[in-house]
Amino acid sequence: MKLHAIIKCAACLVLAAALTFAGEGKWTPQQVLQLDPAWLKKEGLQLPVSRLWDPQRGTGLLAAAVNIGGCSAGFVSSTGLILTNHHCLFSLLQEHSRPDRDLITNGFLARTPSEELPGKTTRVTVPRKFTDVTRIIEDTVRVSADDLARSKAIDAKQKSLVAECEKTPGARCRVAVFDGGLQYVLIESFELSDIRLVYAPPRAIGEFGGEIDNWMWPRHTGDFAMARAYKDGKPYQPEFYFPISKSGVKPGDFVMVLGYPGRTVRSLTAGEMADQRDYWFRLRADIYGEWIRILEETTKGDPAATIAVASTLKSLNNAAKNAQGQLAGLQRGRIIEKQAAREDAVISWAAQRPQYAKALAAKKELDGRAAERRKTATRDFLFQAIPNGPLALKHAATLVRLAAERIKPDMQRETDYMDRELPRLRDRLERDQKSFSLKADQAVFASYVNRALKLSPEEHIAAIDQMFSANVEQTVARLYSSTKVTSLDERLKMFCETTEQLRARRDPMLDLAFALEPELRAYQQESKTHDGAVARLRPEWRRAVIAHAGKPVAPDANGTLRVSFAHVKGYAPRDGVIYTPQTTLAGMLEKHTGEEPFNVPAIIRDAAATVNPEQVPLDFLADADTTGGNSGSPTVNGRGELVGLNFDRVWENVANDFGYNPDVARNVNVDIRFFLWLIKDVQKADNLLSELK
Amino acid sequence: MKLHAIIKCAACLVLAAALTFAGEGKWTPQQVLQLDPAWLKKEGLQLPVSRLWDPQRGTGLLAAAVNIGGCSAGFVSSTGLILTNHHCLFSLLQEHSRPDRDLITNGFLARTPSEELPGKTTRVTVPRKFTDVTRIIEDTVRVSADDLARSKAIDAKQKSLVAECEKTPGARCRVAVFDGGLQYVLIESFELSDIRLVYAPPRAIGEFGGEIDNWMWPRHTGDFAMARAYKDGKPYQPEFYFPISKSGVKPGDFVMVLGYPGRTVRSLTAGEMADQRDYWFRLRADIYGEWIRILEETTKGDPAATIAVASTLKSLNNAAKNAQGQLAGLQRGRIIEKQAAREDAVISWAAQRPQYAKALAAKKELDGRAAERRKTATRDFLFQAIPNGPLALKHAATLVRLAAERIKPDMQRETDYMDRELPRLRDRLERDQKSFSLKADQAVFASYVNRALKLSPEEHIAAIDQMFSANVEQTVARLYSSTKVTSLDERLKMFCETTEQLRARRDPMLDLAFALEPELRAYQQESKTHDGAVARLRPEWRRAVIAHAGKPVAPDANGTLRVSFAHVKGYAPRDGVIYTPQTTLAGMLEKHTGEEPFNVPAIIRDAAATVNPEQVPLDFLADADTTGGNSGSPTVNGRGELVGLNFDRVWENVANDFGYNPDVARNVNVDIRFFLWLIKDVQKADNLLSELK
Repeated sequence: MKLHAIIKCAACLVLAAALTFAGEGKWTPQQVLQLDPAWLKKEGLQLPVSRLWDPQRGTGLLAAAVNIGGCSAGFVSSTGLILTNHHCLFSLLQEHSRPDRDLITNGFLARTPSEELPGKTTRVTVPRKFTDVTRIIEDTVRVSADDLARSKAIDAKQKSLVAECEKTPGARCRVAVFDGGLQYVLIESFELSDIRLVYAPPRAIGEFGGEIDNWMWPRHTGDFAMARAYKDGKPYQPEFYFPISKSGVKPGDFVMVLGYPGRTVRSLTAGEMADQRDYWFRLRADIYGEWIRILEETTKGDPAATIAVASTLKSLNNAAKNAQGQLAGLQRGRIIEKQAAREDAVISWAAQRPQYAKALAAKKELDGRAAERRKTATRDFLFQAIPNGPLALKHAATLVRLAAERIKPDMQRETDYMDRELPRLRDRLERDQKSFSLKADQAVFASYVNRALKLSPEEHIAAIDQMFSANVEQTVARLYSSTKVTSLDERLKMFCETTEQLRARRDPMLDLAFALEPELRAYQQESKTHDGAVARLRPEWRRAVIAHAGKPVAPDANGTLRVSFAHVKGYAPRDGVIYTPQTTLAGMLEKHTGEEPFNVPAIIRDAAATVNPEQVPLDFLADADTTGGNSGSPTVNGRGELVGLNFDRVWENVANDFGYNPDVARNVNVDIRFFLWLIKDVQKADNLLSELK
Repeated sequence: MKLHAIIKCAACLVLAAALTFAGEGKWTPQQVLQLDPAWLKKEGLQLPVSRLWDPQRGTGLLAAAVNIGGCSAGFVSSTGLILTNHHCLFSLLQEHSRPDRDLITNGFLARTPSEELPGKTTRVTVPRKFTDVTRIIEDTVRVSADDLARSKAIDAKQKSLVAECEKTPGARCRVAVFDGGLQYVLIESFELSDIRLVYAPPRAIGEFGGEIDNWMWPRHTGDFAMARAYKDGKPYQPEFYFPISKSGVKPGDFVMVLGYPGRTVRSLTAGEMADQRDYWFRLRADIYGEWIRILEETTKGDPAATIAVASTLKSLNNAAKNAQGQLAGLQRGRIIEKQAAREDAVISWAAQRPQYAKALAAKKELDGRAAERRKTATRDFLFQAIPNGPLALKHAATLVRLAAERIKPDMQRETDYMDRELPRLRDRLERDQKSFSLKADQAVFASYVNRALKLSPEEHIAAIDQMFSANVEQTVARLYSSTKVTSLDERLKMFCETTEQLRARRDPMLDLAFALEPELRAYQQESKTHDGAVARLRPEWRRAVIAHAGKPVAPDANGTLRVSFAHVKGYAPRDGVIYTPQTTLAGMLEKHTGEEPFNVPAIIRDAAATVNPEQVPLDFLADADTTGGNSGSPTVNGRGELVGLNFDRVWENVANDFGYNPDVARNVNVDIRFFLWLIKDVQKADNLLSELK
């Protein structure tokens, strides 16, 4: 960067610093209406709040942000075009890639709608209606005798509300729980299942920097891809969409990040947070770290196996690095200590007010429960990690559970096994085959078993102890050589089989799943009991916390639509260093080594040679309040125009899940001007450009 | 860093950027008098130029910067106190450290002069008089027949000038060659050999960040140590010294960095530079890198051996990392390409002016010679690396050469073996014993031999081919088990022995040195011939370059006194990042992990807890033009007061030896305010404080 650019950046930092920032809060659409409109205007919102959310209709511009397979995305045209992150459409690319047509490596562009590539399992969920059902659920809670019964009663009521809601044709409903039961909202959405790939850059752009740059700044990743939603074979016409901004952003600009943040834990007590840190994140960093090494080692030099495990590896890497970042950030930001200090303030305040006596007791019980749960933390983690672990075990456990659940009346089943979920479940069983590598899966399985065998007597898993009493590696090899669970055809047959049929197969992996089943059920019972207790306790405590705050408090992320109000802004990661908030194509070229993950494709380098690369914006930072699930979130300006897509947080901000630290709370966005440059100057995709205007 | 600090820094950057910078140039004292005094004043010099250097007397404040064993240093009191870098007095600390009194780890403070620790081999050289002898040398050159004769004639004339000069009692003289013979200056100095350690911080402070932070920014190293010079048993009273500034520096401030920069190569042609890059630096990175790994592996788990090789390891690490930085910087800054472009401009200009025809021919011949020398580059590197390689080989080669040289008349000897150098030579033979580890030395020697055996037929070293025809490892082991060169007592005896006596020992390491001797002599003959050619060619070419520039051009560094005019200033190392120019104690604490090299001693942490660590400055950047040899350079403000000590350059600036790039040319200084804080708040060294006022 030349000196004049430094001056510019430095001046911008000063300018930005002169404004007041209030990036904290993943606000629900309903909460946006409770915020002070004058404050929002001052922050930079140029639309009337009612354009964001119409209280009468229970929808608005915010609903142009949709959910796409756990990621966020935004409609950007009246013709169903959707922008999201490259990694959010990765499975669609994987689905259509073959060794002789490597869309992952080369990228893809449909020059006409007929060239668009349909996805088998990609679905978009569009929100339609939000109804507060707290009172209804609370009525249910009050009559319950104990924690387990309470938990079951809440489950049952949620299911019946969902079933009722889904009587509306095409509706897809859920009851979202806020802050452990402080509020319950019935959300009605509808699903678009015909999603076709329109454009994806080469992986070297979409994942530029790879694992090395993941969670890092400065960043130069073009992490976006475009799809089109169809309904009844025609491009879907959304009621709301974000027109693409041509002016882009500059430091200090107001932006809103919309989307579906997955899970934060700021409403936990400091004691519960410490439990998360000491068990959940440490185990995740450790165990996933081991699986990553295994996947890498067992697929080395085998191109097919390398492609197969790529997606799993991405998820595990992401989760493991996230865990490391949480641990580092908790320590660095002294977040748990700060939460404890805030709690002390609430406790002193509440102690003067008899109406909060129950709140204080509730907090104490929450802390006590956290301490108790530590005793079986490693076993619990292994149980919870089954969906992310060896595919054979995951599939066997799923099939065994499915057979047991399917014979129950729909409403009495586990949520994941209700009729409405079965197509999705079958999709996963099918899709997973693309990710299967026998050698890798077997090695991860052996690691899983070895971990289980090392558990303390208090935590041990009997089914595994029994089956693997002899040589583990040999037993595992035998098991994989005889199981049929790893065969897609057989697995899809099993999908329809009864418990008796599955048992009759005498398939050793299914037999292991049958042996595990009572232990998994018992653990789930414990979890449900805990959930029932939390539903009883957390709302009490949180009501005291919120009353003490005396202003709206954004609830923890729970996968529902949220908006964060932010500004484009750099930060100081450490003594002596300032990160400026905007990177450019020049920085991408600077990082180019010719080798993954810093290999800028020749077509990009050629196009870059014809412009001043310092004038092509690439990524930018804002102080938006985001978390996992915000991947692909539309980042829009004060006029509601798309200026970027959120795709990451910075490393110093990972522990943000526990608490917002304004000094380092920065999300990473790909700049829409980079997308436009690629589409125009590199791809010459005039069709798309004119469609986007 | 808090937001207000960012604003402050950002504002400072703006302020700094508003000034005009001209950091380029390591000016000789004589050149300072040729610069425009108004420009110097505008830059920030508050003293009259004549205070810096008095042309009448040929001395001035600049002479308060002295040479200490290859490092720079500065007098800071009228009582002989000297400040330099921690690593420049490291051997003094090593000399006095024992397992039960580990001064390296714990640091040292003399609370009274009687506690000061004398050094056996530490010497300070103070410049006294500079005389231009160019004409005298040129007269010698003109009468010479060929390049070898010319080289020898120049050597002989230099020696006689030095001998004449050293007739003055206590004088220590040398003839310094500028830009390959453009100018020759006879420098008269005197030597102080009674240098006693006064203060050194714990190594964890003096080397904070270790190899990880070496060449890096942001930096938090307290790289200073203090000694006192004695003369005739009394504190030496220097005529000039730098009083310590109490106000310190702020971004944008003018500073001067004074000292003895060792070697730069900016006067080379682009063709010669490419040769340096392709051979010298690539080989250094490769071969020294290998030796570093060997030293580390062979001393692992052996505390005595680890201490022994520590100093060698430091030098090698520094040189290897430097080489990597040169290579990266040359590429990044496109420095050779820029030099080529400048040369083209000079060539076009000179082509119009017949008086420069010889200059053009000279440049062509220089390029041709560089191309020719590539053919034996690896062998040449191995010969040149003997002083940095296995000690046994170095000592054997030195002793064999010494015996041959000593029988010659003093004036006809190689410079390093003249009578005046012998005490120094003996010191080294003695001091090296502290650095000797049999296992490590043997392993490095084996690596050396294996490299030599792999040379192409054109480059091969006959002495090594013959001795190591069989199993290398066995031969090396036999050699080390029977040589006496590795014994200090025997080596000191050998120091006085004749060639015949050495041969009679039938010591295999000496025998190898005897076998190598003719090849080394032949190589040195080639080098001398080359030097003679350069002395003929380079001045011709440089005169054209300077005439084309039309203004003073600072000559390449050559270990003589220089001054660089600079400003405190950050920089942008890459897209998205700004480095601010000042670090603080807060950053050191931030880096603290409790493990080397980021282990802040408890006494520092305790003292830090009583202050705001963001208010204790630690290191700062300036855009001074420095290189190796500037270690320990006094950094002084416009009033001549000491504000810091130079101790490093930043990574992006390593290739600065080839050319000054204002965007990244930054030197790293330890802030004198950190020294004062340590002395006052941590050490409570009131004696020192009052002596420094």
